Amino acid sequence: MYVRFSLNADLLTSGDIPGEAAAAIEQAVQEANETSFRRGVPKEAQPDDIGRITGWSVEGNALRLSIASGPYTRAHDALFRFRKSIASVLGRHRIGVRGIEVTGFTIRLEGSVEPAAIPRLPMIQETAFDENGVLLSLTLNAADLENKVPDRLVRLIEEKAEAMAYGGKAEHWELIYESPRQPPRFDRDPTEEMVKKGWIKHGAARGQWIYGPQAVQLFRAFETIVLEEIIRPLGFSEMVFPKLVPWEVWKRSGHAKGVYPEIYYVCTPKTRDPAYWEDVADYFKVTGEVPVEMIRDRIDGPIGGMCYAQCPPFWPFVQGETLATDCLPIHVFDRSGTSHRYESGGIHGIERVDEFHRIEVLWLGTAEQTVDTADRLHAAYTRVFDDLLELEWRCARVTPWFMAQEGLVGVSENEQIGTRDYEAVLPYSGGWLEFQNVSVNGNKYPKGFNVKIQSGADCWSGCSGIGLERWTAAFLAQKGFDMADWPDRVAELVGEPKEIFRFL
Amino acid sequence: MYVRFSLNADLLTSGDIPGEAAAAIEQAVQEANETSFRRGVPKEAQPDDIGRITGWSVEGNALRLSIASGPYTRAHDALFRFRKSIASVLGRHRIGVRGIEVTGFTIRLEGSVEPAAIPRLPMIQETAFDENGVLLSLTLNAADLENKVPDRLVRLIEEKAEAMAYGGKAEHWELIYESPRQPPRFDRDPTEEMVKKGWIKHGAARGQWIYGPQAVQLFRAFETIVLEEIIRPLGFSEMVFPKLVPWEVWKRSGHAKGVYPEIYYVCTPKTRDPAYWEDVADYFKVTGEVPVEMIRDRIDGPIGGMCYAQCPPFWPFVQGETLATDCLPIHVFDRSGTSHRYESGGIHGIERVDEFHRIEVLWLGTAEQTVDTADRLHAAYTRVFDDLLELEWRCARVTPWFMAQEGLVGVSENEQIGTRDYEAVLPYSGGWLEFQNVSVNGNKYPKGFNVKIQSGADCWSGCSGIGLERWTAAFLAQKGFDMADWPDRVAELVGEPKEIFRFL
Repeated sequence: MYVRFSLNADLLTSGDIPGEAAAAIEQAVQEANETSFRRGVPKEAQPDDIGRITGWSVEGNALRLSIASGPYTRAHDALFRFRKSIASVLGRHRIGVRGIEVTGFTIRLEGSVEPAAIPRLPMIQETAFDENGVLLSLTLNAADLENKVPDRLVRLIEEKAEAMAYGGKAEHWELIYESPRQPPRFDRDPTEEMVKKGWIKHGAARGQWIYGPQAVQLFRAFETIVLEEIIRPLGFSEMVFPKLVPWEVWKRSGHAKGVYPEIYYVCTPKTRDPAYWEDVADYFKVTGEVPVEMIRDRIDGPIGGMCYAQCPPFWPFVQGETLATDCLPIHVFDRSGTSHRYESGGIHGIERVDEFHRIEVLWLGTAEQTVDTADRLHAAYTRVFDDLLELEWRCARVTPWFMAQEGLVGVSENEQIGTRDYEAVLPYSGGWLEFQNVSVNGNKYPKGFNVKIQSGADCWSGCSGIGLERWTAAFLAQKGFDMADWPDRVAELVGEPKEIFRFL
Repeated sequence: MYVRFSLNADLLTSGDIPGEAAAAIEQAVQEANETSFRRGVPKEAQPDDIGRITGWSVEGNALRLSIASGPYTRAHDALFRFRKSIASVLGRHRIGVRGIEVTGFTIRLEGSVEPAAIPRLPMIQETAFDENGVLLSLTLNAADLENKVPDRLVRLIEEKAEAMAYGGKAEHWELIYESPRQPPRFDRDPTEEMVKKGWIKHGAARGQWIYGPQAVQLFRAFETIVLEEIIRPLGFSEMVFPKLVPWEVWKRSGHAKGVYPEIYYVCTPKTRDPAYWEDVADYFKVTGEVPVEMIRDRIDGPIGGMCYAQCPPFWPFVQGETLATDCLPIHVFDRSGTSHRYESGGIHGIERVDEFHRIEVLWLGTAEQTVDTADRLHAAYTRVFDDLLELEWRCARVTPWFMAQEGLVGVSENEQIGTRDYEAVLPYSGGWLEFQNVSVNGNKYPKGFNVKIQSGADCWSGCSGIGLERWTAAFLAQKGFDMADWPDRVAELVGEPKEIFRFL
């Protein structure tokens, strides 16, 4: 995409700029155009592609600038670079630069531009399309320029164009392992069977189950297998990650780019003062109904949401730190609470729920260490699924979860970065259930949370989410409820179902 | 408090009421006043205290009634009782009763009335105070009457009067056990020490910590002690309780009466359609900021909140059921996730946080079984704190938690119902920390969730919340960080702290 930036801005000074400064200003402008703006620009760049002050004038305490650029030393970057150099020139006249007022900013785009999306984008005041492209007039201030708003805007428009071009293509899916076939022992929906047996009941909220002792015996048996066969042999240490996730975390993890449709949002009371809430309580006491609209007016936020992906809230533990080379790779896991996703409506089995339980495995280190851990996890999982659970399953390279959760499709350009989904066949439907995954996330999180390695090597990370509901759904769908059909180790760990409730 | 109800209402019929029905109506009115309204009323009641139809007339298809009462067969109850009997009278004229229109409703209160609170209460249109009391004119319809709004209103005004009378009195606190003294091993704040050692770091949200491996070793050691010494010997089975709590649960558990100031509220997206959320995502992509106000307009609810007390969301598992006598007592526990409370601001140690981890123990059965389980739990805790953890602690009878969370003070009238708090001394401050509790909640939850016992005995329940952060805070505050000072069993279960992170 062809891109050009053009801006008008006033550098506001602490006093009127004297006429005798004109020559020095002109000299600074020429120096900027010929030297400073060319720093860091590739040799093959055309002169027109590079930022250039195209005009200047003085009016009282304002130095008025017009700057234009293509993709290199973009007009706004040129502005800030010039402010630095002109500050020392004006300093000689005992005048300081006090602020910047942006009086005009346009972006010219040519090439594959998706017209439909542009007018709704923030900061855009006017759009003018012609046969070659579009001219965007923006309303923004100096803080927006420092915050790289024009660059983000261009990148977003490019992304939308790519998504259009990609549109309709299916998610990436590429088989990398297929297990031996297993004799099917059961052909019904295991959730219905668990409900019939009284092992689980619907919770009061949507997509939520209450698990009785018998179901939890399965969860804990699988957890024991994960701990004994995977987590301990590979040397993972348990941590406790937070479960309320504020925007601050999702801004850095990238989830703020696209996860909004599926979040359970969290809001806080405007105050803890009981007097402020007394009439809400009174309303309930008198009517027996909770006054949702009254509450809505009395809460702030949303401040973020309930845990969605389990690993992002770990990262503030290492945020801004440099890790000693010899403590790497770091291997940790968390199993301290629930994850919540606003899934599409309707009745689901335990394999597709709004509230679920997951053991999240997380590791970081150099690229090599990170890839190696992922491979060793894959080998351990393969042994567990083939030999211990005797599942019929397969493994596929798919669109990385962190891309999917930002609304992107395709796969990473780097072959080593990506997600492997583990899928088990469900004999009752013939479909396949993704019951866990392993991802190498490259430097995405270390970069987002500013984590470095002492040696200077790029820091990478990986994660693997082990869904207890999904292991249970896959296992019961294939093996059924007759424990005589179960692999010995599983039967032994689960034990006889505890039937402690008896309803009339 | 002296109370009188007075109402005017029209019974609307399917056709005009003929003049020849008058005698039968008058007879029905007399029968009601002399017989039907007196059913179930205590003998000592004065005639004036009992509901009475004081006047009636016919106008087209409306039978206009005036009814007055004191506390017995209240005017609105009398209305519904009379509708039944008059329906068969009018039926003989082939006329049916189609609806009720309430044209006036007043409540007269005399005695200790708190004037300040009344005008803000819902449904009240007008209040007129005089030297003896107040006359409330209400705006309500037949559904409100069926929903017992007048009764709830009177009860609430009585509660407020009691709270005023009780005002200023401290919460109930009555010592019931004091442990032997223990030699103090440490005199600093354990949270500060854990932060210094890199065992814990602040999470990104308020009152939230990320626990490193060393802290989690302590959590898991205590969890093991709870499982091995308390939960298994007393025969508790693990369940998984939901962690998102909708109003439906808090309406029945009573939390909707007063817990509003401390809830982390949960809201849901108005739709999962990505197109609906595209401009929110675009705004973030362009500005790097999350547009909280835009999101606020796109979410529904709040539908409830994050887990506050851990046991209420268990109850839908048994809601509406009759339990077989021989499966009682039921003993279960949950340790599947976090609890969240909007605590007062400022920096706290791990002993006072917004997000915390608790093992919740819950039991139900007859009153005797429930009290017996609480006593056996108390004995087991005493052994663990005295002999295994060697803590200096005490136990006190306090205002029951379910009363406190409804904004009430004092204690239950029934000596067997109530909460015992377990408190440990914090040598660094000299204060006492409540680190867990045991409660017998009487029939509160079985009643709220409509749970019965086959034998007809009253169903009771109890619960006990074991706070992992608070056990840890109490233990470290008393024993410090030198494992040589720790009881052997704890030191052995915790093991050497895993120092897996090293920051430069």
